Amino acid sequence: MQIPTFDDALAAQRRIAPYVHETPVMTSRFLDDLVGAELFFKCENFQRAGAFKARGASNAVFGLTEAAAARGVATHSSGNHGTCLAYAAGRRGIPCTVVMPHSAPQAKKDAVRGYGGRVVECEPSTTSREAVFAEVLAETGAEFVHPYNDPRVIAGQATCSMEFIAQVPGLDAIMAPIGGGGLVSGTCLALSHLEPEIAIYAAEPAQADDAARSLAAGHIIADDAPVTVADGLKVPLKDLTWHFVRQHLRAILTAEEDEIIVAMRLTWARMKLVTEPSCAVSLAAILKNRAEFQGRRVGVVLTGGNVDLDRLPWMKGV
Amino acid sequence: MQIPTFDDALAAQRRIAPYVHETPVMTSRFLDDLVGAELFFKCENFQRAGAFKARGASNAVFGLTEAAAARGVATHSSGNHGTCLAYAAGRRGIPCTVVMPHSAPQAKKDAVRGYGGRVVECEPSTTSREAVFAEVLAETGAEFVHPYNDPRVIAGQATCSMEFIAQVPGLDAIMAPIGGGGLVSGTCLALSHLEPEIAIYAAEPAQADDAARSLAAGHIIADDAPVTVADGLKVPLKDLTWHFVRQHLRAILTAEEDEIIVAMRLTWARMKLVTEPSCAVSLAAILKNRAEFQGRRVGVVLTGGNVDLDRLPWMKGV
Repeated sequence: MQIPTFDDALAAQRRIAPYVHETPVMTSRFLDDLVGAELFFKCENFQRAGAFKARGASNAVFGLTEAAAARGVATHSSGNHGTCLAYAAGRRGIPCTVVMPHSAPQAKKDAVRGYGGRVVECEPSTTSREAVFAEVLAETGAEFVHPYNDPRVIAGQATCSMEFIAQVPGLDAIMAPIGGGGLVSGTCLALSHLEPEIAIYAAEPAQADDAARSLAAGHIIADDAPVTVADGLKVPLKDLTWHFVRQHLRAILTAEEDEIIVAMRLTWARMKLVTEPSCAVSLAAILKNRAEFQGRRVGVVLTGGNVDLDRLPWMKGV
Repeated sequence: MQIPTFDDALAAQRRIAPYVHETPVMTSRFLDDLVGAELFFKCENFQRAGAFKARGASNAVFGLTEAAAARGVATHSSGNHGTCLAYAAGRRGIPCTVVMPHSAPQAKKDAVRGYGGRVVECEPSTTSREAVFAEVLAETGAEFVHPYNDPRVIAGQATCSMEFIAQVPGLDAIMAPIGGGGLVSGTCLALSHLEPEIAIYAAEPAQADDAARSLAAGHIIADDAPVTVADGLKVPLKDLTWHFVRQHLRAILTAEEDEIIVAMRLTWARMKLVTEPSCAVSLAAILKNRAEFQGRRVGVVLTGGNVDLDRLPWMKGV
């Protein structure tokens, strides 16, 4: 286990600057009044490829030696990491293979291909995915970039909160959604060095609360196929992310499915921002725990905006 | 007919500064490649009350004498002007009455009330609206603020392009949707003084192309109840807006209904911006007339983001 250091995060910031946006921070008087706090939203939905994961993926891709880069990169992900890795590989001009179940949404496959990546389909089971992915690595010699349990990825995600605190001085707290814990780990890595007094919160769907239960239990708990509208947050913690989560988090707060959908819709209706369900869990958790944030300056990471516009969770029959 | 002057626009800029946002300008590499131009999107969907009309409404409201302000303001509008006038009146703490048909969407009525305005309902006919509105004015002594044929409103809308050209130097063209022509007139007012070499284009639904036909005919043509998804663009030109439109426009380009919906969806999917159909006509017209904009720096005003999230135009059965 190679723990990324703050120097790795600084190196990531320099390395990825040409390939990622410094995303804007937005505010909403309406939401401030609703919560009774000052909320600052870091709009990673405007990030390249539509999600903060462009940061970690770019750091991994652009940190490769020429020889390793020539063999390309590969991952298994039916979510934003696959798209973002394809984006970064496309910018460097190297091959990228993403293994995903044939049942994954067509839009996700198209997104990878849109950035020049190759999609290899597997059956929707862990066994099939691992077998197919092993074949891909053996054939290509590609570098595996894990969606979150990778020091290069965590160091890349750390740049999000480094940028955030430079844009908004004096934050009392930062809140980000937690799935595998890559963004939260990066946040811990950055803030524990730069602003240790900022309280770091994570938000999780109540129906996929394995990280909250892990923190309570003192060891990683992995759920088998949790069901939640926040489909980016189903994956479990791994050793690297657990290292950061167990040390630095103030709390992991949870929100129910209907609360997540209400929060998502609020960001669309009041802030005019297209956000994805996984991203809305943070606001949902804040709305559910108003007392905790009363009168405080709270940074909220809007993690992504890649959503199926034909199947919005508040539409009937979806 | 009192034509607003550039001094009026300068005064408006100072007057409304505390009540409106300097909205950000966003870009999209994807859309640039699609069009073959450099597009700059002025995000008035992030404006107070969700539309550029907060500018004109604020200028009208905050320009009133204390005595006139005490009697309040009134308008007839089932669209953004009603909401924005209620917003501005709420900021000044004066009464605002908005006459709209009882058939108007509940969300529009709620939006006016949400800012402290009063909704008075009429039948969905011009006769009823005029009768009810005359009663409101007689009862309250309120100041009528027309949605666009008002020099205070046009001077207020002019601040949008003044801000835009300060944010993005060297624009070759600016494109805005045209309904009654308030925003386009403000754009003409500002740019004819500040940057007369910038070509001003307007975009209009082909199914409500009265402004394009007016320009071709040399006199105002008003349509009776045109049908278009761009519901903010159904109203005709009036004498003040005709004054500007006939003098300064390079062209009025039109787009079909399906082209408007495709353009709207592109801004949602690729830019992660919630925009309303009326707002998407500009991009639709640019996509339809790529040759006209090839290699140029084009400013596009995204006019508003107030849309019914339960009834998006690309959803089946809507």
